[in-house]
Amino acid sequence: MTTNNVKDENVNDQIQEQVALQSLRWNGQQLDLLDQRLLPEEIVYLPLETPIEVWEAIRHLKVRGAPAIGIAAAYGVYLGIRGVDAVVDGLLAEVQKGADYLATSRPTAVNLFWALDRMRARASVLAAEGVSPDAFKAALLQEAQVIQAEDEDTNRRIGEHALTLFEDGFGVLTHCNAGGLATAKYGTALAPFYLAKEQGLNIKVFADETRPVLQGARLTAFELQQAGVDVTLICDNMAGAVMAKGWIQAVIVGTDRVAANGDVANKIGTYSVAVLAKAHGIPFYVASPLSTIDLNTPTGGDIPIEERHEDEITQGFGKRTAPVGVKVFNPAFDVTPNEYVTAIITEKGIVQAPYGENLRKLFE
Amino acid sequence: MTTNNVKDENVNDQIQEQVALQSLRWNGQQLDLLDQRLLPEEIVYLPLETPIEVWEAIRHLKVRGAPAIGIAAAYGVYLGIRGVDAVVDGLLAEVQKGADYLATSRPTAVNLFWALDRMRARASVLAAEGVSPDAFKAALLQEAQVIQAEDEDTNRRIGEHALTLFEDGFGVLTHCNAGGLATAKYGTALAPFYLAKEQGLNIKVFADETRPVLQGARLTAFELQQAGVDVTLICDNMAGAVMAKGWIQAVIVGTDRVAANGDVANKIGTYSVAVLAKAHGIPFYVASPLSTIDLNTPTGGDIPIEERHEDEITQGFGKRTAPVGVKVFNPAFDVTPNEYVTAIITEKGIVQAPYGENLRKLFE
Repeated sequence: MTTNNVKDENVNDQIQEQVALQSLRWNGQQLDLLDQRLLPEEIVYLPLETPIEVWEAIRHLKVRGAPAIGIAAAYGVYLGIRGVDAVVDGLLAEVQKGADYLATSRPTAVNLFWALDRMRARASVLAAEGVSPDAFKAALLQEAQVIQAEDEDTNRRIGEHALTLFEDGFGVLTHCNAGGLATAKYGTALAPFYLAKEQGLNIKVFADETRPVLQGARLTAFELQQAGVDVTLICDNMAGAVMAKGWIQAVIVGTDRVAANGDVANKIGTYSVAVLAKAHGIPFYVASPLSTIDLNTPTGGDIPIEERHEDEITQGFGKRTAPVGVKVFNPAFDVTPNEYVTAIITEKGIVQAPYGENLRKLFE
Repeated sequence: MTTNNVKDENVNDQIQEQVALQSLRWNGQQLDLLDQRLLPEEIVYLPLETPIEVWEAIRHLKVRGAPAIGIAAAYGVYLGIRGVDAVVDGLLAEVQKGADYLATSRPTAVNLFWALDRMRARASVLAAEGVSPDAFKAALLQEAQVIQAEDEDTNRRIGEHALTLFEDGFGVLTHCNAGGLATAKYGTALAPFYLAKEQGLNIKVFADETRPVLQGARLTAFELQQAGVDVTLICDNMAGAVMAKGWIQAVIVGTDRVAANGDVANKIGTYSVAVLAKAHGIPFYVASPLSTIDLNTPTGGDIPIEERHEDEITQGFGKRTAPVGVKVFNPAFDVTPNEYVTAIITEKGIVQAPYGENLRKLFE
């Protein structure tokens, strides 16, 4: 394992289109977005045609996963201007307005703000270049498509780097879903599993079901099973037990935001898994594209943690499983301090402590 | 805190009948058993009239909790003989047969075997005494009722001892349900909360929902809420996060079997909570009646751990939440090694390490 190791560019072509489902796809007219709340029972693509529809899809977890949220928001910005009959200055104002609005959909994943900033910046450049309104619109659609395409490429690279940390026969535990459904394709934390499958390596994945929304059961187990990866579903509270049995040689998770000091915000429960991994001497890896690393957030304590509605816990699947009126604490994320993080795996290589220094180098 | 501290007998009368629901009650004709699978939405008492019905109620979690399982099984033995027209030797054989059968209902909780052994022993004594068949039957019903009454008393004492470990304002986390619904009344791990409420102490309870069967959400949150105890429901994977926030000053759980060396079998997820507690410097207490301590089981590794059906995880909410055919690991319990156990709280006092020595003293 090398620090900040920028590998060469020969992206592995062996990762095939194993994930038939795509979290989102531009169909030429609108954004078709897979409604992830309905998986694995129903496969429904929602046609999104307005920023309001995109905002609502993000807020209500129809699309989730930091990279996928960012991509959806980028298309949302374009959807906000494509029907507007205005000069470029007017369109630029609409871009700003739309980006500001979409930024309010969820607070924790930094990819949302990263993608919106990128759309804003592109719009400003286009306006400064004096392009026509039609060219302005076309270029912003293209920017969203480039963000999506880059995410695929990024994930393939993360998968390659991550796989260097695993050996044939490893048991690897993951929490939540940082797979193809959380991204444009391949996923971040799940990318090495697809790659291992291609290379004939036997990696045994343990997927935490990830209450309350069960992204591990509904999404991770589903997409890995579809790809023929050896996956075993467990409840979140079984993570310690399977570690104690010696079944786990590594943990890998995605992230919604990495602070400048290497603290990691990710799905609630990630911190517990990290503490358990450390207690069992198991390395804890975080797969993170550069777009998820936020050097403007000094520490994990500065990351806003979304709290969600109690219904997710008390009647998460259409059936009440807790008494009416009971007090509930439902944070969507937690922060894992950097001392629990063995390495952060990016598209530019594997980064280890000291994170403050080594994360900064990635952006130089 | 003292080791093996046998407190005086003045059982605190201040614990009132706060739990209106009783896990089971003998109504003169049959065993009325609260179907805990339906809580908190429906309150249904099932009339049990045969050992088969009791076996089925235990196996399918209509009654659960180590002490309550033992009590139900004791009544089950009586139900197996009350309609039998035979001499005492024939009844004694039926007791043996019934106890052997009921012992197959679930493997982990030792109270089941403890209660059955006690019924067997009582039956042998009665037969040796040459009582009449009617007296034999009446005495075995009485034995089951005594086991139940003793459990109430035991739990009150455990509650008193446990409360000496808590201070006003403490946040205390518990896992699964070791409350009134798991026992005859009051519960083991939850008994101090009822007592604290009576004494006007403010204890803030955090209840893990406890996947897959959600005993924490459906039972612990429910019974504490009914009693006016300050309880907050969290998902299992939030335990680490609330500890990191400094909200938890102690953990207390029940147990299904304590091995002779102090290793503790309890609901799956307990081990993870114990590791997390240790990492945060939080004491981890186990409330255990003597009937749950099994000196014949040397270590936790010798405790049989029940694995249950995958449906509990894949469609536990009445709706499929994981892909069809996915591999599942579903152990009902895990073992917490004695080094994670700060103290074991029994009706005869609080026991600390070295457990091998100090647990044995309880039975002298």
